[in-house]
Amino acid sequence: MNADLVMPTRQARNPMTLHELETPVLVLDRTKMERNIARLRDRLAPFGVALRPHVKTNKSADVTARIGAPGTPITVSTLKEAGHFLEHGWTDILYAVGIVPSKLPHVEELVRRGARMTLLLDNVEAAAAVAAYCRERALGVPVLIEIDTDGHRSGVKPEDPVLLEIGAALDGKEGQGAWLAGVLTHAGDSYNCRSAAAIEALAEQERAGAVRAAQRLRAAGHAAPVVSVGSTPTAHYARSLDGVTEVRAGVFVFFDLVMNGIGVCETSDIALSVLCTVIGHQREKGWLITDAGWMAMSRDRGTAKQPVDQGYGLVCDLDGKPLADLVMVDANQEHGIVSHRTDPVATPMLPVGTLLRILPNHACATAAQHGAYTVVAGSGVVEAQWPRFSGW
Amino acid sequence: MNADLVMPTRQARNPMTLHELETPVLVLDRTKMERNIARLRDRLAPFGVALRPHVKTNKSADVTARIGAPGTPITVSTLKEAGHFLEHGWTDILYAVGIVPSKLPHVEELVRRGARMTLLLDNVEAAAAVAAYCRERALGVPVLIEIDTDGHRSGVKPEDPVLLEIGAALDGKEGQGAWLAGVLTHAGDSYNCRSAAAIEALAEQERAGAVRAAQRLRAAGHAAPVVSVGSTPTAHYARSLDGVTEVRAGVFVFFDLVMNGIGVCETSDIALSVLCTVIGHQREKGWLITDAGWMAMSRDRGTAKQPVDQGYGLVCDLDGKPLADLVMVDANQEHGIVSHRTDPVATPMLPVGTLLRILPNHACATAAQHGAYTVVAGSGVVEAQWPRFSGW
Repeated sequence: MNADLVMPTRQARNPMTLHELETPVLVLDRTKMERNIARLRDRLAPFGVALRPHVKTNKSADVTARIGAPGTPITVSTLKEAGHFLEHGWTDILYAVGIVPSKLPHVEELVRRGARMTLLLDNVEAAAAVAAYCRERALGVPVLIEIDTDGHRSGVKPEDPVLLEIGAALDGKEGQGAWLAGVLTHAGDSYNCRSAAAIEALAEQERAGAVRAAQRLRAAGHAAPVVSVGSTPTAHYARSLDGVTEVRAGVFVFFDLVMNGIGVCETSDIALSVLCTVIGHQREKGWLITDAGWMAMSRDRGTAKQPVDQGYGLVCDLDGKPLADLVMVDANQEHGIVSHRTDPVATPMLPVGTLLRILPNHACATAAQHGAYTVVAGSGVVEAQWPRFSGW
Repeated sequence: MNADLVMPTRQARNPMTLHELETPVLVLDRTKMERNIARLRDRLAPFGVALRPHVKTNKSADVTARIGAPGTPITVSTLKEAGHFLEHGWTDILYAVGIVPSKLPHVEELVRRGARMTLLLDNVEAAAAVAAYCRERALGVPVLIEIDTDGHRSGVKPEDPVLLEIGAALDGKEGQGAWLAGVLTHAGDSYNCRSAAAIEALAEQERAGAVRAAQRLRAAGHAAPVVSVGSTPTAHYARSLDGVTEVRAGVFVFFDLVMNGIGVCETSDIALSVLCTVIGHQREKGWLITDAGWMAMSRDRGTAKQPVDQGYGLVCDLDGKPLADLVMVDANQEHGIVSHRTDPVATPMLPVGTLLRILPNHACATAAQHGAYTVVAGSGVVEAQWPRFSGW
């Protein structure tokens, strides 16, 4: 028996290598993350547009600081994110989920604390309510109108007559009341693309739809200076960003198997993984049982509809190299089942105690299951623990 | 315009009604929870077995105290749960995930702090490592052998020769070293049952398999006093528990749509819901957009394979009554899409600001997305905020 196995020591507060960690744990490869960030920055540089990263993916001041220093623009999906990043020095905050009147007091609190909060909406009722609130509370709030360029979710169509009604309901002027700052769209349907050509086409549709909506508002007398577009796939494939002022993306920082499945990254670019331990076997079935279940990976099965279904994740060795065709085929709360993708008999019966790293389907969902990033840089030496938050 | 909508006040620290909460928020109906707990207690009483609730579902001392006072036995799925409940006075703790040697120092720490930690394993390697560790550290730890009674996950078959090898590897005696306390099985396959008769049959298979394994160990000279079985479905349908000493269940406290789909509860028994707000519409598609996406509901689609697919959840009004055939048909991170189950045209275009409550597919997964329970008792008056924890 291996003495290392039977006499481990309780993990140090600042463990030095992945071997010393109690699993499951979320591992972030800083080298890959920085490469991913540089890639998108380099790609967008020639277009002369701002990057307004979506921090919903990382929910961490430490990660976000590697994308842009405090003070640079960010996008958030919750007001809790807005408050957290405001505390850490990010003041130019776009809340990219349709605002409802009941959240305006929270928005006001953030503004009074120093945030420049940009709001989003896609209907006249919300516009009128925001305008009335801002008037009565003497609050200056820029508002974007959400444009639907791909039928994916929220927003008004670029040619919809209601666009101008919403614009008219926003009766403030720059810096005073609720004022129309421009338009926003998110080509969420890019996650369903299956080729570079398809993403390029969707990126152009996203750009053209947003610019057209802004043009209609300008023709009606609004300044509407902002044209905000983005998704990780379209940000990486857009051939023109004419008329666009800023690009949003979130998952580009980490990448994941869904992005790999649509061709935006290689598996070797994926900066997040869940470190887990083999805890048992079902030899007849060709199963390895691990201590990373859906609680550690999330229930996200985003690759299920892609040409290559990666189960709950792609299984790698401790160095992050994929182990030939091993995937996490099923999950209970704290148990993962790992097996060969097509031939369970071919599953190597790795010993109890073996450490594995599982690449996630969806970085946003997997990261959300954890309270911190354990940061490594290639070699497996742990550099830091970066806290992340959750909730609303 | 409704003045209530345009001039809401920032939510109080102790809001009095659901109307005053900022959404999304996890709501727990205490009345239903207490009814569910009483139901299982009443059902098990005639059998004379102990209930050892699985606290992985609730991860809350406040909830667990309603099942059994500190000091009563509990089951945990992580050592973090063990530590948390130990701090709150629960000392009789079964860690029901296969132990690996690297976690033994953490187990030892818990034992030294006063926990009676029962461990689980299903292979000789782990048994030998635990035995060696306990011998060297002079630690008394009861161990259960995991039995596979339904092919669902981990464990050794009741008739497997390796069962006795594992027993032999556990060389301690009661209170000294790693000693064989008995067997444990979990009929996880009960979640796939489609009738009361099927659950009854599986409950009997679960019972008989565990008892048979214990008998074999006893015949080999082990005391093996404990026979631990359970899952929420089998706990509610077992007709005999002869030879069983304790029953484990977790989700019975809250219930959920998966349990409803297999006939274990009514939708009116489900004690958890996610309160959310309508933030917009896509009228042409018959969609309501809400601010509860998969982050608030989890990505769990446990009803997808059941006869009635409830999407990401069943939509109820503010009182918790289902709205005719409205389900959450799709989810983005912070956006939910609500529509009529079969006929989108029939979706009522509820106004922006309308509050809805969504019943979850899987209580364990949905609760895990939230940091607290907002506790109500029928009327919608908020009684308390009960914190819950997450992570490892």
